[in-house]
Amino acid sequence: MKDFEVKEVKQIYSGRVVDLSVETIILPDGKEARREVVRHPGAVAIVPMASAKEVILIKQFRYCAGKTLWEIPAGTMEQGETPLACAQRELIEETGHRAGKMESLGGFYTTPGFCNEFLYLFVATELEQCESNLDRDEQIETHKMSMKEAFCKIESGEIADAKTLVGLMRVNRMTLR
Amino acid sequence: MKDFEVKEVKQIYSGRVVDLSVETIILPDGKEARREVVRHPGAVAIVPMASAKEVILIKQFRYCAGKTLWEIPAGTMEQGETPLACAQRELIEETGHRAGKMESLGGFYTTPGFCNEFLYLFVATELEQCESNLDRDEQIETHKMSMKEAFCKIESGEIADAKTLVGLMRVNRMTLR
Repeated sequence: MKDFEVKEVKQIYSGRVVDLSVETIILPDGKEARREVVRHPGAVAIVPMASAKEVILIKQFRYCAGKTLWEIPAGTMEQGETPLACAQRELIEETGHRAGKMESLGGFYTTPGFCNEFLYLFVATELEQCESNLDRDEQIETHKMSMKEAFCKIESGEIADAKTLVGLMRVNRMTLR
Repeated sequence: MKDFEVKEVKQIYSGRVVDLSVETIILPDGKEARREVVRHPGAVAIVPMASAKEVILIKQFRYCAGKTLWEIPAGTMEQGETPLACAQRELIEETGHRAGKMESLGGFYTTPGFCNEFLYLFVATELEQCESNLDRDEQIETHKMSMKEAFCKIESGEIADAKTLVGLMRVNRMTLR
């Protein structure tokens, strides 16, 4: 059941990664509201476990943040691509590892207030090194570290990326069970 | 140290919540790349603890997601507003509770691949009921539940919002220590 009615959709921009529209909706109480809506094709993120207690993180300069961030590998889904296929592809591209086992951990909306992006989360195990195949405009360093070290980086604020925080804490809870 | 150079910024849209620009940058290796950049004023999210083991979550219809989501209270910072003042204001507006104690849990980028939004996270304790003062176009239900129930909703996928997952897991780790 929808509890609103769409009155007008004004398309502002249609791009490579995102589209933007301004939409006028009618709320259940009859009032009008305006929403700026960023549309995104959806994405995946992968927690690559090198062993039971070691994770592979990447470090890359993020233009939007204006700084280098610690992250788990991730990427945008291509048209027609399944989340699982995207996860396998991005893991190889960004870390040079193929996963023998790729398990779903569900997913989440990254910023539901203004964007429809849904991110599918996976944990990758049984990793095997292979050739990486990085996008021409990505510059990524990979670092293997203990989960203990990763959690120190969470506590210190050095890891400050939403999907990475969710991914590491979800996997840690699994291994605690 | 910046490891890129901005060549061109094309402003596409300037809105109430977000701005959009398409920016051409020169990477350290001399190659050009284009970035679609959504700019956002920044936001806060609050984990409101009604007691040591109980949290207040909100349920609201999210137009961008096309569905009702379970979330922790959150909101966009107004011009000149500090994260702490915004957290106090949003907690009152969205839950009708004032926090005797509001502690910082740092923060994170929500989607650094295409947006500069940084979200400051807080945990609110010593809650006192007061009058809520909801925005005219927000329709929010508040629910008090045990952390145990909230974690069941994480495991089942019923909680599928990034800031809510980070907030609940961070606070749970604190209380485990």
